[in-house]
Amino acid sequence: MDNGVIRIIGLDPGLRRTGWGVIDVLGTRLTYVASGTILPPEDAPMGVRLVALHTGLCEVLERFAPQEAAVEETFVNMNPSSTLKLGQARGVVLLAPAGRGLPVAEYAALLVKKSVVGAGRAEKAQVRMMISVLMPKAAPETEDAADALAVAVTHAHHRGAAALRRAAV
Amino acid sequence: MDNGVIRIIGLDPGLRRTGWGVIDVLGTRLTYVASGTILPPEDAPMGVRLVALHTGLCEVLERFAPQEAAVEETFVNMNPSSTLKLGQARGVVLLAPAGRGLPVAEYAALLVKKSVVGAGRAEKAQVRMMISVLMPKAAPETEDAADALAVAVTHAHHRGAAALRRAAV
Repeated sequence: MDNGVIRIIGLDPGLRRTGWGVIDVLGTRLTYVASGTILPPEDAPMGVRLVALHTGLCEVLERFAPQEAAVEETFVNMNPSSTLKLGQARGVVLLAPAGRGLPVAEYAALLVKKSVVGAGRAEKAQVRMMISVLMPKAAPETEDAADALAVAVTHAHHRGAAALRRAAV
Repeated sequence: MDNGVIRIIGLDPGLRRTGWGVIDVLGTRLTYVASGTILPPEDAPMGVRLVALHTGLCEVLERFAPQEAAVEETFVNMNPSSTLKLGQARGVVLLAPAGRGLPVAEYAALLVKKSVVGAGRAEKAQVRMMISVLMPKAAPETEDAADALAVAVTHAHHRGAAALRRAAV
């Protein structure tokens, strides 16, 4: 993209619902581009569900052509079986942008909430409200899409610092 | 494949090492075709590691063209962070064959050991030895490749029963 604008896709992985949100960043200015939710079929075999997730993500990446990706690192109290399933969706969510050569950053859920709301223990509704405050044109239709936009905003705030750290190594 | 031969790929997923093993099945006769281990770079970012795993799997699937896939469902006592990482690798391992339209079966590790060795608590060395007994030409170079062949053998034993159950629904 021209003029120093960086397009970022944020992703909130889940096997039932994966949220995505695309923003443009120019300096400190954030502009909403698009957001949505991918819903793989729930009653299909695991492989088929993951293929639907991968195909959906590839379509979004193709359509909006982001340059960088950021994925939320959810760490919830779940049983090992649920954690494994979330991991499976997460693997596909990391693979899709990385397969197109995009750098993929990961951010802990606490950091995402702190970056967007100012508090790590924020409720989902607060995240959604702050997204509307930060980007008035944003109209995430689901909490997952709002969370994905929050991850993109977090990456917009942290990518400069990360680039400096990389340059210093 | 002609003559009623079914080619099966077994997969033992792991982020550091993913084992694979291909066998041909004709009735109760099992024939070793090939096996190996995919080793994604350990020091790369997660997205890059998953892309290397996916690319390696796609090459194996392209080369040996199996018709059915079977993946081991490992359930070990791990911390949630390790479980999530295993899940990420597992998601990619399920995606690769499903993305080519192959049916992908999943088998619990206990069932795999019971099918091959006759005991659910078998050691890895016993699994490896039994693979050599069942298929004298098999020369799995790693434990992961031997485990993958064991998953393929398990699927060979159970696929008929599963097809009957599906037909009865």
